[in-house]
Amino acid sequence: MTHDASHVVRGGGFQWPAIPLRAYKNDGSPHRDITRRTLLGEGEGEQALDALVRYFEIQAGGYSTLERHQHPHAVVMLRGRGTVILGERVEPVAAFDCVYVGPHCFHQFHANAGEALGFLCVVSRERDRPQLPTDQELERLRAVPAVAQLLRV
Amino acid sequence: MTHDASHVVRGGGFQWPAIPLRAYKNDGSPHRDITRRTLLGEGEGEQALDALVRYFEIQAGGYSTLERHQHPHAVVMLRGRGTVILGERVEPVAAFDCVYVGPHCFHQFHANAGEALGFLCVVSRERDRPQLPTDQELERLRAVPAVAQLLRV
Repeated sequence: MTHDASHVVRGGGFQWPAIPLRAYKNDGSPHRDITRRTLLGEGEGEQALDALVRYFEIQAGGYSTLERHQHPHAVVMLRGRGTVILGERVEPVAAFDCVYVGPHCFHQFHANAGEALGFLCVVSRERDRPQLPTDQELERLRAVPAVAQLLRV
Repeated sequence: MTHDASHVVRGGGFQWPAIPLRAYKNDGSPHRDITRRTLLGEGEGEQALDALVRYFEIQAGGYSTLERHQHPHAVVMLRGRGTVILGERVEPVAAFDCVYVGPHCFHQFHANAGEALGFLCVVSRERDRPQLPTDQELERLRAVPAVAQLLRV
């Protein structure tokens, strides 16, 4: 009846010392001042999880990569305030807000309120690779003034 | 390029007004002073998510059902302090701790530190039903003094 795979990973104050702090991406895509930690799903014994729970943190002035993919995101904002681009819309976000990013929706998180923006993002372990916008897609996004103003590519 | 399925669900202070506050369970299993909200995965247009993100909150003195199942849990503590039974072990938990509950591991969360205990719990949409302990399993758990002291069934 002992199940050694179960365990507690200690955290406090948006830090989890036992979990490696990773670069957000290493693919040369446009992003700024953002880090990534996989809180659950990549640790020892956690292979049974179909979902990964990651914590992203964007420092003031930073942003994530504008991208889209088939797999959806389930995002729970944990820290600070900022703004998200969701396709052709722009929405303010703050701690406790939840964001559903549907399939193929371009999205980009911005810590544009003068403070760090931190959030959990749940994804399936098996998922497709993100795609950057084509020139034509960028043109369509830029046709929306609120998006054009915020967009960083 | 418009993707209407994407959306923001507003929250603040461990409340999400647009999301129904549910009874924890309705199956007659032993539990006390605990509520459940599905933050992501059951809302309109969220069917593409393979995982559900739920928020559970246990009021001071309350506890979840002691149970086990094949599917694992990915838990991120968000509020307060308490204790979790993980098989034959007992661990303190506090905000920011992450708990991996592996397959078939009996688990029970307790808000036994005089304050509310709140946590996110991620599960696969498709999953098996929880099982309560048999008398023999209970006997083995009760053989561990720290577990016996905390256990509520």
